[in-house]
Amino acid sequence: MADEWYQSSKDVQGVLLDITGVLYNSSDDGGVVIPGSVEAVNRLKSSGVQVRFCTNETMCTRQALVTKLNKLGFDIKIEEVFSPIPAACHLLRSESLKPHLLVHSDAVADFGDLASSTAPPTCVVIADCGSDFTYDNLNDAFRVLMNMEKPNLISLGRGKYYKDDGQLKLDVGAFMRALEYACGCEATVVGKPAKSFFKTALSGMGVTPDKAIMVGDDIVNDVGGAQACGIRGLQVRTGKYRPSDEPHPEVKPAGYVDNLAQAVDLLLSNR
Amino acid sequence: MADEWYQSSKDVQGVLLDITGVLYNSSDDGGVVIPGSVEAVNRLKSSGVQVRFCTNETMCTRQALVTKLNKLGFDIKIEEVFSPIPAACHLLRSESLKPHLLVHSDAVADFGDLASSTAPPTCVVIADCGSDFTYDNLNDAFRVLMNMEKPNLISLGRGKYYKDDGQLKLDVGAFMRALEYACGCEATVVGKPAKSFFKTALSGMGVTPDKAIMVGDDIVNDVGGAQACGIRGLQVRTGKYRPSDEPHPEVKPAGYVDNLAQAVDLLLSNR
Repeated sequence: MADEWYQSSKDVQGVLLDITGVLYNSSDDGGVVIPGSVEAVNRLKSSGVQVRFCTNETMCTRQALVTKLNKLGFDIKIEEVFSPIPAACHLLRSESLKPHLLVHSDAVADFGDLASSTAPPTCVVIADCGSDFTYDNLNDAFRVLMNMEKPNLISLGRGKYYKDDGQLKLDVGAFMRALEYACGCEATVVGKPAKSFFKTALSGMGVTPDKAIMVGDDIVNDVGGAQACGIRGLQVRTGKYRPSDEPHPEVKPAGYVDNLAQAVDLLLSNR
Repeated sequence: MADEWYQSSKDVQGVLLDITGVLYNSSDDGGVVIPGSVEAVNRLKSSGVQVRFCTNETMCTRQALVTKLNKLGFDIKIEEVFSPIPAACHLLRSESLKPHLLVHSDAVADFGDLASSTAPPTCVVIADCGSDFTYDNLNDAFRVLMNMEKPNLISLGRGKYYKDDGQLKLDVGAFMRALEYACGCEATVVGKPAKSFFKTALSGMGVTPDKAIMVGDDIVNDVGGAQACGIRGLQVRTGKYRPSDEPHPEVKPAGYVDNLAQAVDLLLSNR
């Protein structure tokens, strides 16, 4: 039985939590806590289990995200939050790439001076940017790619959709696919579900994959991504979860839980 | 040799011509004739060869397109123009589908009353709509699809990009791919390169595929689409043509020509 995941979870030393759809539901005016999530995070932390927050959220700087979450009642430090932008900056620096940024204007600051030289761009970095996904911005990024001998597209996540203000909205993966198709290229994905992303978060805790659990609302990017690294993955029935995710044709989670509070209840009941 | 296509073209009875990038280059202020194209069409018609215009252009009504072309000097009748909208309307009627339209506002009239009932939509029709491809419009179409038990997406063409005002711009295919990915569905394509589209144009002329030639600037949708039906396909080096199309990894045209005028010169030189 899939629900028996917690009976074998005695040895869990580290928990990776998705943020949007697990801790809170986002909206234009800051968002709403998913009931029980603040207490669940606190109980998890005080139990001695290590916790990291793994998000593909790139609509603001990492600091702004932490500030927003703490205003909602969470107790989260910036160094506990893993987001794709630092990973992308590392990639850009190590490969000496000059990016053209198709990212939310509030996230540009996290790229420092990487995009500020006058040199022609050698890659396009695409991240969820909501209503900044305009036809003109997409065409600008498309033309930059078409001017390269070999189009180099770096995508911060490849999510299909997320829930915001109670509505499903297209995520970065849809626009990544649009550019891939038009340019005949394949994007490099940074962030979930890239293995390197999960591994970096684990190594920061000093925990091996078999001693970790990932909790997320995205069956493919959270659960499937984690499981591809040997981390058990749980899907919560909050956020963008849809009943049709269950059972999923490709991803078989270690378990389903109604929400984060239930996941933590079950996890800690066994210690 | 690919260039020998015209030596075996004595038996050609019908010519299918793409419009944008072959007859003229489009722009916000009406467009510019590709030199020699007006005369080439006239010579072709007076030679006794039948001519039809096959376009995926859906940014206006078919009548508005014909009016624009004739203002540029062409002599084209509306019944000579094949565009995906009548084909889509036929499909919607025959399957009793109520569409949600993600099409250019200037093209809505060509759908008549098909979209006007208050019944919930049972499909989404997507066509190139330029700057009407807003984040909000894409999300609206996405949510309509996600509310269906089995998302039904009908795409008028699947072009990757086209040239407008001297610049490459994303075409409907890119946004089709975005919605396909987000919804986990595969679109039904109406218009080029669908075989039924080419066959309808041929049957209107009473010409068999082996007695026809298609001339277009899109290596995949014009040339590849025609050749999949047994029609010889020529690529012109105008419009969205890029040197990297030649040779193409998947499509081997019957020949390349500098422009429509050269294609017609070669074709008629042999009669």
